[in-house]
Amino acid sequence: MPDPVLGQRAAETLEEVRQKKPLIHNITNFVVMNYTANALLACGASPVMAHAAEEVAEMVAFAGALVLNIGTLSTSWVDAMLTAGRKANELDIPIILDPVGSGATRLRTESARRLMDELSIRVIRGNASEVLSLAQEGSRTKGVDSIHRVEEAEAAAMTLARELRTTLAITGPVDVITDGRRVWRVLNGHELMGYVTGTGCTATALIGAFLSVETDPVAAAAGGLAYFGLAGEQAAVSASGPGSFQMALLDALYRMDKDALSRGARIASARNL
Amino acid sequence: MPDPVLGQRAAETLEEVRQKKPLIHNITNFVVMNYTANALLACGASPVMAHAAEEVAEMVAFAGALVLNIGTLSTSWVDAMLTAGRKANELDIPIILDPVGSGATRLRTESARRLMDELSIRVIRGNASEVLSLAQEGSRTKGVDSIHRVEEAEAAAMTLARELRTTLAITGPVDVITDGRRVWRVLNGHELMGYVTGTGCTATALIGAFLSVETDPVAAAAGGLAYFGLAGEQAAVSASGPGSFQMALLDALYRMDKDALSRGARIASARNL
Amino acid sequence: MPDPVLGQRAAETLEEVRQKKPLIHNITNFVVMNYTANALLACGASPVMAHAAEEVAEMVAFAGALVLNIGTLSTSWVDAMLTAGRKANELDIPIILDPVGSGATRLRTESARRLMDELSIRVIRGNASEVLSLAQEGSRTKGVDSIHRVEEAEAAAMTLARELRTTLAITGPVDVITDGRRVWRVLNGHELMGYVTGTGCTATALIGAFLSVETDPVAAAAGGLAYFGLAGEQAAVSASGPGSFQMALLDALYRMDKDALSRGARIASARNL
Repeated sequence: MPDPVLGQRAAETLEEVRQKKPLIHNITNFVVMNYTANALLACGASPVMAHAAEEVAEMVAFAGALVLNIGTLSTSWVDAMLTAGRKANELDIPIILDPVGSGATRLRTESARRLMDELSIRVIRGNASEVLSLAQEGSRTKGVDSIHRVEEAEAAAMTLARELRTTLAITGPVDVITDGRRVWRVLNGHELMGYVTGTGCTATALIGAFLSVETDPVAAAAGGLAYFGLAGEQAAVSASGPGSFQMALLDALYRMDKDALSRGARIASARNL
Repeated sequence: MPDPVLGQRAAETLEEVRQKKPLIHNITNFVVMNYTANALLACGASPVMAHAAEEVAEMVAFAGALVLNIGTLSTSWVDAMLTAGRKANELDIPIILDPVGSGATRLRTESARRLMDELSIRVIRGNASEVLSLAQEGSRTKGVDSIHRVEEAEAAAMTLARELRTTLAITGPVDVITDGRRVWRVLNGHELMGYVTGTGCTATALIGAFLSVETDPVAAAAGGLAYFGLAGEQAAVSASGPGSFQMALLDALYRMDKDALSRGARIASARNL
Repeated sequence: MPDPVLGQRAAETLEEVRQKKPLIHNITNFVVMNYTANALLACGASPVMAHAAEEVAEMVAFAGALVLNIGTLSTSWVDAMLTAGRKANELDIPIILDPVGSGATRLRTESARRLMDELSIRVIRGNASEVLSLAQEGSRTKGVDSIHRVEEAEAAAMTLARELRTTLAITGPVDVITDGRRVWRVLNGHELMGYVTGTGCTATALIGAFLSVETDPVAAAAGGLAYFGLAGEQAAVSASGPGSFQMALLDALYRMDKDALSRGARIASARNL
């Protein structure tokens, strides 16, 4: 059951992003750089993409949030992510990690874990298999890929969030957000989003924008996902396929006003420990 | 004269791609990564872009095809292409090469030739000057840039395909596909495709998707090109220019059904040796 | 007061680009490569993106202009820019520099200055803070960020252009172009351009195309900016937000004819020394 108070809070966060226009520093993959930057602009934030080891610490110091995404990784980029991340931690600038493809190759899994080990990450956004790949050996959540019931998946996610000491935003037909204590669900979204490359990465970047003004990571993640999912629902109305959809999605992000998000966000507080 | 049997076969291949959703591993250029990924999604395939030497062999092992594209080349990327390609050859995963700009600079010509020498390539897709630049010194096809009659160009292409021991897909106003024994022509397409960057690269990626389920490289290349060209014809109907066209093209790739491709594909078997 | 003669000259330059289809060699940032290439195609030019040290000198030799953009800089790219730039200078091929983010980090400021010191740059296109960051220590323009009156800003720009011995194209609500002797203003544009990533970079690339056929750098920069700004005005008419706008902008660049640009360009010759 969506909670209107949570929808209203998401709408207020969006409003605050638009007023403050925070710089969002992205060290992200080549495939999505353009679309992610456009989504952040449509949201009202100021995106910057910078990955050179020589400048990332300087750049992140201006930022409201740091987005790390391992989608087209190479080792020198991981070093830059660590440099930027350490500075962000020092300045208490929130970091969000998108472990794209973690679990698929050793480079990705090990890079994601190294970023988690060496940095304090506010939110991790990924799909179920990416997030589960981050569990340590011996974790109680190992092998939970086969869990089908939502309640079991949520219990596993809570356990993993406590182990990793962060907030997890696991996206899928229903998004699950947990800090290990609370579990929230976001019901917004549209299946055409699966036919546009980088929608997951874009969700991560938008959560980054929300994190820059909302201190509760669960609320920031849920708010960003509800905003993006609702824009997807609106874009689908007029779209003829994934091409027109991806442009309509930017339009919808830009046109979303406080009332529309407050009314349309479907965020439920599923349970609390 | 288009052969309806060949159109039907293309439609069946598209259907099979949509059922199997093969992972297509791309090591490609920065300009087209986003559009190519979106085209593969619209086709029903699952794109992945990965270029790090540390992970390409692991990644390609999951793939139905490997797409190599030298559009924004640097030397470390050639090494990654060779590593991925050797693994693909070992596992009998088809490789398609797009020799973007071969003939324009030594780096590109030599990189394309090195990939051809060290790997077994199932299909090479390029325009006439790119493909002809791959001929060895002393080749009978050297200097054929000036050939104007289609029949002479096709004869030169057949000779080159035999020399290179691969299938060539030479795109232009009429696409010519040959394995050195057969020559097929594809008549689909629209001139607006020349005003969108990376349409050649996208054609290559779509042929990659077709190669993952169709074992005959001539049929895979012709089918992929007919599918892409027909989508271009459909997209042009409503487009106001190359911007709206490029999004309508993704819509058309996504909406194309088996019957429409079977009816609209214009693939002709020009001659056989 | 816009000068119709200057508008007509811009229209003639566009016409000449379309007839000659110059190759425009871009060493630019990852975020905008795709959009910039599409804008150059829509304009009638032939874009190529190439950054490998091994090939840039060979590639630029075919080009009508070289576009250098430091948006997602790393040090090896600066070396490639210098290699390409030296060859361009040797062959008298015009260079345009976009100092993205200069002033924000030392890497960017120092890279922009190094390019200016070691190369002869025909035009620099940036926003006011980027361009002002290029002033040397002790420059009379240091600290002019706080200048608000247009006349004062123009006087500072003229001083800086003379110090840097180049033409400056400073874009904003009103674009100011000066070679230190003349000052021209371009009044075209639309606020939605600020919601699409890389519009500044795209303006730079289009000026590059104009520079390839127009020898007066002030006229080339003003013409390119008027063309781009007018296309933005046209695109805004039908756009529902920044997504549909960015595609309509490519359509408008493509559809712009000589008469429309001649009539719609608002270029004013503000004053002469």
